[in-house]
Amino acid sequence: MKKHFVGGALVLAFAAQALQAQVTTPPKTVLGFSDKNSSGQLQTEALFDKQLDAANIGASIKTFSAYPHHIGSAGGKQVADAVAARLKEYGFDTKIETFWVLFPVPKTRELEMTGTAKYKALLKEPALKEDATSGQSEQLPTYNAWSADGDVTAPLVFVNYGLPADYEELERMGIDVKGKIVIAKYGRSWRGIKPKVAQEHGAIGCIIYSDPKDDGYFAGDVYPKGAFKNEYGVQRGSVMDMVIYPGDPLTPNVGATPEAQRLDRANATNLLKIPVLPISYHDARPLLEALEGPVAPENWRGALPITYHVGPGTASVHLKLAFDWQLRPCYDVIGTVQGAAYPDEWVIRGNHHDAWVNGAGDPISGLAAMLEEAKAIGALLKTGWKPKRTLVYCAWDGEEPGLLGSTEWVETHAEELKQKAVVYINSDGNGRGFLGAGGSHALEPYMEEIAKTVIDPQTNVSVFERKRADELVNASSVNAKKELLKKPFTLSALGSGSDFSSFLQHVGVPALNLEYGGEDPGGEYHSIYDSYDDYRRFKDPTFAYGVALAQTAGRAALRMADADLLPFNFKNLYSTINGYVTELMTQVDQLRESTTVENQLIRSKAYKLAADPLDTYNPPKVQDEVPYLDFSPLQNALRDLERVTRGLSDSLNKTVNSNVDHGPVNKLLYRSEQELLLQKGLPYRDWYRHSLYAPGLYTGYGVKTMPGIREAIEQRKWEQAQQQIMMDAKAIRQLADHLYLIAKVTS
Amino acid sequence: MKKHFVGGALVLAFAAQALQAQVTTPPKTVLGFSDKNSSGQLQTEALFDKQLDAANIGASIKTFSAYPHHIGSAGGKQVADAVAARLKEYGFDTKIETFWVLFPVPKTRELEMTGTAKYKALLKEPALKEDATSGQSEQLPTYNAWSADGDVTAPLVFVNYGLPADYEELERMGIDVKGKIVIAKYGRSWRGIKPKVAQEHGAIGCIIYSDPKDDGYFAGDVYPKGAFKNEYGVQRGSVMDMVIYPGDPLTPNVGATPEAQRLDRANATNLLKIPVLPISYHDARPLLEALEGPVAPENWRGALPITYHVGPGTASVHLKLAFDWQLRPCYDVIGTVQGAAYPDEWVIRGNHHDAWVNGAGDPISGLAAMLEEAKAIGALLKTGWKPKRTLVYCAWDGEEPGLLGSTEWVETHAEELKQKAVVYINSDGNGRGFLGAGGSHALEPYMEEIAKTVIDPQTNVSVFERKRADELVNASSVNAKKELLKKPFTLSALGSGSDFSSFLQHVGVPALNLEYGGEDPGGEYHSIYDSYDDYRRFKDPTFAYGVALAQTAGRAALRMADADLLPFNFKNLYSTINGYVTELMTQVDQLRESTTVENQLIRSKAYKLAADPLDTYNPPKVQDEVPYLDFSPLQNALRDLERVTRGLSDSLNKTVNSNVDHGPVNKLLYRSEQELLLQKGLPYRDWYRHSLYAPGLYTGYGVKTMPGIREAIEQRKWEQAQQQIMMDAKAIRQLADHLYLIAKVTS
Repeated sequence: MKKHFVGGALVLAFAAQALQAQVTTPPKTVLGFSDKNSSGQLQTEALFDKQLDAANIGASIKTFSAYPHHIGSAGGKQVADAVAARLKEYGFDTKIETFWVLFPVPKTRELEMTGTAKYKALLKEPALKEDATSGQSEQLPTYNAWSADGDVTAPLVFVNYGLPADYEELERMGIDVKGKIVIAKYGRSWRGIKPKVAQEHGAIGCIIYSDPKDDGYFAGDVYPKGAFKNEYGVQRGSVMDMVIYPGDPLTPNVGATPEAQRLDRANATNLLKIPVLPISYHDARPLLEALEGPVAPENWRGALPITYHVGPGTASVHLKLAFDWQLRPCYDVIGTVQGAAYPDEWVIRGNHHDAWVNGAGDPISGLAAMLEEAKAIGALLKTGWKPKRTLVYCAWDGEEPGLLGSTEWVETHAEELKQKAVVYINSDGNGRGFLGAGGSHALEPYMEEIAKTVIDPQTNVSVFERKRADELVNASSVNAKKELLKKPFTLSALGSGSDFSSFLQHVGVPALNLEYGGEDPGGEYHSIYDSYDDYRRFKDPTFAYGVALAQTAGRAALRMADADLLPFNFKNLYSTINGYVTELMTQVDQLRESTTVENQLIRSKAYKLAADPLDTYNPPKVQDEVPYLDFSPLQNALRDLERVTRGLSDSLNKTVNSNVDHGPVNKLLYRSEQELLLQKGLPYRDWYRHSLYAPGLYTGYGVKTMPGIREAIEQRKWEQAQQQIMMDAKAIRQLADHLYLIAKVTS
Repeated sequence: MKKHFVGGALVLAFAAQALQAQVTTPPKTVLGFSDKNSSGQLQTEALFDKQLDAANIGASIKTFSAYPHHIGSAGGKQVADAVAARLKEYGFDTKIETFWVLFPVPKTRELEMTGTAKYKALLKEPALKEDATSGQSEQLPTYNAWSADGDVTAPLVFVNYGLPADYEELERMGIDVKGKIVIAKYGRSWRGIKPKVAQEHGAIGCIIYSDPKDDGYFAGDVYPKGAFKNEYGVQRGSVMDMVIYPGDPLTPNVGATPEAQRLDRANATNLLKIPVLPISYHDARPLLEALEGPVAPENWRGALPITYHVGPGTASVHLKLAFDWQLRPCYDVIGTVQGAAYPDEWVIRGNHHDAWVNGAGDPISGLAAMLEEAKAIGALLKTGWKPKRTLVYCAWDGEEPGLLGSTEWVETHAEELKQKAVVYINSDGNGRGFLGAGGSHALEPYMEEIAKTVIDPQTNVSVFERKRADELVNASSVNAKKELLKKPFTLSALGSGSDFSSFLQHVGVPALNLEYGGEDPGGEYHSIYDSYDDYRRFKDPTFAYGVALAQTAGRAALRMADADLLPFNFKNLYSTINGYVTELMTQVDQLRESTTVENQLIRSKAYKLAADPLDTYNPPKVQDEVPYLDFSPLQNALRDLERVTRGLSDSLNKTVNSNVDHGPVNKLLYRSEQELLLQKGLPYRDWYRHSLYAPGLYTGYGVKTMPGIREAIEQRKWEQAQQQIMMDAKAIRQLADHLYLIAKVTS
């Protein structure tokens, strides 16, 4: 589901030491392994690597993307069964866990413009002879899942990307969307934010379109000549308000088992009240061309050959949508290899199997790599190797509509996961380019080490080195480059958009999200053109990055499964949190300063005087001055965390080679992440419990780190910010106390 | 000629104290006037203001833009005669000084594309029923004056804006323009830079087009519905390499009198060797659409509904241009009102009268305001008032092709101007919006005081206050806003693009350039649509800003003409220069740091590793490390300048009310600017002699302050930079010594 690396935005931050130092002799030890056991692990990995076959990955992609397979479809069931059969074949103890989840499918979709300039929208992506699967009949039509049913007619207003700041600009221009239908561009936020903000402002309908500037001919040649969105392409997708809670909207916090208590749909707080429809730029153009009113601000304008106006105009838009709201089966495929030493410690690896249509890229490219890992593990098993810990390989259903399969599974097994889950390693779509890696920051050194052992298929340097080069070259300033040269590797923080969310943010399982990409941009995302034909031309033509992903995620799983002492490093976690706190303190200071200056400008009528008197212009309003917040609880907790992590790293390094049973320490180590959970969860959305990572209330997929504090500051809720400082400080102190316990056990 | 305020780029920097302090009681004293004489001056100005009539300015614009009147045309002669008649009528002693200058007019213009996709360019702007003068037959066709004759056929390469950095990107992509024709977008530099850089890189022809992103429907509704460039509009204009020297290319440094020695055209170093043609976006689209090769970098792409490729392609472009190269008469209208007290001290006011076609905006809107000033001065004369100093009102011919009229006049009268010229006050086009004021920085307080006395016609606050509000609101950062709040008013530094250039940069006459604009964007510039019909709809519909310009420039002229002690303030000049030096020192340090980091990246192959292996990519080359330069000569000279200006301001303030004859001090004051001239002129272009201000070698109109040093640094010529530091230090020391002399005379 997650759109990765789109529009050249490489969001994962990496860094590095002087590059020259990189190509060195192969490592002799592995983090978490005793000197003695390191070489065995490296041999296992070498054997594992030998099993990985690019051609086989390509064949898997072709097989599983041969027909549409969204949740609830016949194709979906077929894919689940086929994946289960594969896992079984590889020696995994495999079952399908079925949940019953709500999933709306369109019955009626109509969009037309009435008035002098009439237009009836096509709402249809045409089949192309260059794309073998594009004409199949089982496709879901173009729509946004979780749109409300609705039949509305109103003038249209163009709202840019439909974000809160865009509505502030509309207010400056004197334009109100109350009772109107809005049209927003895809991009800059997760799509579900757009109708949510529109609804908050009183709009009665929402259209989302792909502007050719962001996703069309402006970016490059269009499909099928090139990879980018042609004029008829449409991005499907969920508009569930996942930042409140993901999963089945009717069963928050509990698994959607047949017997689960279900909410009435009207009471599901993550569902919209207004109709929403995604359209192509072919369908958007006549609507936008008919708009009158002010010319849109410069940074709102797209690449259609028109003058973008904000609206409204004399024309009205009629939007009529109706859905079939049924409970449907959600098939999670779970394959297990029992751990020989610690069967109750689970290393979980997952990728979803459902797609919006054929989904060769999203999710099959990731699923195919994961199955290739499973195949290689199967081969290892045949040599007599057994993992110390239990390996759990999962193929999730219903990720696309809102992480349904993984969320229901996690909610069902929450208590067990808190006891047993060592790590969750996620992937989704995959492509050609650079390693992207996000996750829990105590896993940074372990992922860095892994990235140094995987060779980039195009350049023959490590994927660590290549990613670092990319980050260095594209850093925004000389200072940023110098910082990157200092810090060799950074995991990005995780927001949402794929199946790691419930593991990490709901129950506190340490998580990773891995993918390759950045050299595979295109417009196929969530369209009928996300096909095998598209994939082999524009994504990863040789499937070599499928192998790279299998190597990366495979090593991540195997090392966690077989480690003597689990390779968590809390020094990295400490400096990450410390960085966030510094950032927040600076942010408050800057906000205080800018508020003072802006208020001065507003009071002196500078905004009014600078505006063109011939235009409508409402100047911004004076805002409350920003108080000084007490960050000392956080600072003191961080001082304690720093102190304990400093000593702990050394003692863990020594412990790994001792002959004592590491069992109790390991249990404490992998459950440390849970100390960072907030007892009450986040404000407005208690499903989210991690103090460090959450999707933003107004960004969607995009992460907000220390979200309780950060969003209170952004919303200028100063008391709430102060309360959240106290809560995060408490979580950090909990973690510090927990680490003191580990330090005691190991010293 | 100068395109002011286009694309929202308000380049003149202003600043201010707390806004609240502004609306105060009217001033009682005037800078440069004794307490006794101040009230008389204010009465004179009140009388002057009463004569200014917006309707009359509108009528003048209509009259003088009624027919095409480029240099050498019948219409041009007619305008010159009519302006002379007006000045005579107002009581000015008026003559026409005629020079004989080269001016090419097209004989042949052909552009076509051959190959599979054929296209023959229209090269013609259609007449519109909404624009009364758009169908007149005497129009100059669409062309770039000073293009070479040529008949070339070659593949086409798209070079973005055609600037040096664009060719560096082409080199990264492995694209060479040698033997090719290039197509560049208008914008980001003066147009003449584009063919010059193309020629330097071996291109054999150059096409310049207006992309709808910068100058068309992307910006707003197109003409005649709105003000922006329609698909057929073309920007004419000069491509003389004016940054080497402006004026008649055959007579550098001397006036183009009939008997002047003339260069052979082939030896004129400011003329191109390749053919250049401007075209519309209607004509550009098929050419761009036929390009193949890499997709253009994101910031190169415009708003045509195509994927922009860099080229070349299989298609070839055939460009054939031939010109009639004749000497033509250039009519400068010079009207004088003899000074009663100091006839040999000249306050010069000028605006050009020639246009590319009808030129309602450029230059007639400025000329009409200037004539309104002259009318008001005529009325003052009738009351018996006489200026102390001589007023010289000038209407220049041949500004459009390269500042011909003003440059030849200045070169002819250079020695006299060095003795007599107190100030040169320029205007050009004018429109609705904010005051833009550039010039010699010793004039800052005087201009600030004037700006506070002129009332903005739309908001009823002073134009000072309105401009400051605009600058504050649009400042790029909170820090920039705080800086603006500290400094109440800044004159921008002058580059080129209008008739102030030779006064200021060739002979060292203190200069000002004044205009209103910013609320009048459009695409009429240098097209047949720069008409009265366009002007009254989109530029200054009530002509109220014509009155504002007449008030502003009129006060500037009258105060200089009648001042007791000329209102130069060298403290402002000192802090401006000090700011430039700080900027240059920081720039060298930053360049040193970035060179070190970039070289590290290049040596470690980061650029190569970050590039997509499927694309051609040539990494940048390691550059020489940046040495430490010795800025101490400048710092020491500045210390002396600071010392003397500190004392001087006080003593001048006292002197103004004393009864001594200020004559000798005034003569020293207005000639101070000449101390800043460089004996040898600037490197590569000794016509330019000012140490502080010059148009940039690769920006054209855009100023480079302390150009000798700054451009040497930009070109990484470290020895030259050090030499230029010595030379600028010498100029500053000369100025300091000169000011010591004034201080002695006044103390």
